[in-house]
Amino acid sequence: MKELNQQLDFIIELDLLKGIYRQALVKSDNNRFENSAEHSWHISLTAQILHEYAVEEVNILRVMSMLLIHDIVEIDAGDMFAFSDKKALAEQEDKEVAAAIRIFGLLPEKQFLHFKQLWLEFEKAETADARFAKAIDRILPLLQNMRNEGGSWARHNIKKSQVIERNKYLERLSPKLWLYVCEQIDHAVEQGWLNDS
Amino acid sequence: MKELNQQLDFIIELDLLKGIYRQALVKSDNNRFENSAEHSWHISLTAQILHEYAVEEVNILRVMSMLLIHDIVEIDAGDMFAFSDKKALAEQEDKEVAAAIRIFGLLPEKQFLHFKQLWLEFEKAETADARFAKAIDRILPLLQNMRNEGGSWARHNIKKSQVIERNKYLERLSPKLWLYVCEQIDHAVEQGWLNDS
Repeated sequence: MKELNQQLDFIIELDLLKGIYRQALVKSDNNRFENSAEHSWHISLTAQILHEYAVEEVNILRVMSMLLIHDIVEIDAGDMFAFSDKKALAEQEDKEVAAAIRIFGLLPEKQFLHFKQLWLEFEKAETADARFAKAIDRILPLLQNMRNEGGSWARHNIKKSQVIERNKYLERLSPKLWLYVCEQIDHAVEQGWLNDS
Repeated sequence: MKELNQQLDFIIELDLLKGIYRQALVKSDNNRFENSAEHSWHISLTAQILHEYAVEEVNILRVMSMLLIHDIVEIDAGDMFAFSDKKALAEQEDKEVAAAIRIFGLLPEKQFLHFKQLWLEFEKAETADARFAKAIDRILPLLQNMRNEGGSWARHNIKKSQVIERNKYLERLSPKLWLYVCEQIDHAVEQGWLNDS
């Protein structure tokens, strides 16, 4: 039963991600902050729905699995707003690597190695699966903000150029989604939800 | 762009599941109620972690996809406590079928049929994938309650016999997990978290 107990400890540890709050807002629940567990669910399904727009061939069930675990490190490292300064983002990387080792390390060896590797693959974004996963992780906040009068962009006075920089690698991975994103960004500037600079 | 707009409408509709609250409590976040979106994330990962305990051969990535969508119908139908009376549970079934048609119906035809079918497969639990998915959906609340002084069981004065009835089909699907569940139920009765009848 030793392995089963390790696995159950990990499963219970996951509960902590439900208490890690992001900058995104849940419009349908009184605009409270979104937590990273429900975000991971949403993003994983979003990848499945938008699969056909990937130019490269991807294993979509593998992409979904990657997105389900991509934020687990935040249990120790906390969430970092995507538009934080570069120094803070670099420090965050170190915290997340330590977190991956501790949290996935609760699992039996074979599963520990599997999940640590899958998480690192996502972070490096050097494979087709990881590139598509990362692109989808970036497009969802845009969709949420566009349906919520600018949402976290408006609250933090984010610039158009920052959103373009964060999403532009969609241009090659998924030209149709990139076209959509560009239209949305222009619309957001017109509405005053994004700073036009 | 018509299909893309349908897909994005569905993705935004999913946000509503983050405001559907269950009887389960999130111990690590001040014992607030758990919502069905974060539950779906947790259960999908739990299935992957416990995959090796399935006696029947299952396609685990398909099981995970099934668990990601199994509660989406609650956006319209609401959550129903597992230990509600039979009449209420039967009425809930009708509401959920209508919800599946409306919500998955936001998607383009091919995806609508795919997800409606996957959801029905889960509900009927007649395939190995669906049986394992359903077993896992039942074991997670037990794990959460055992780490939280009885959690939703204690709040609703649930009986040992009800928990056994709800979990007993683990006996055939996954004897090792069934053994674990039986030990936990006995321990819960000793602690006074479950009514011994």
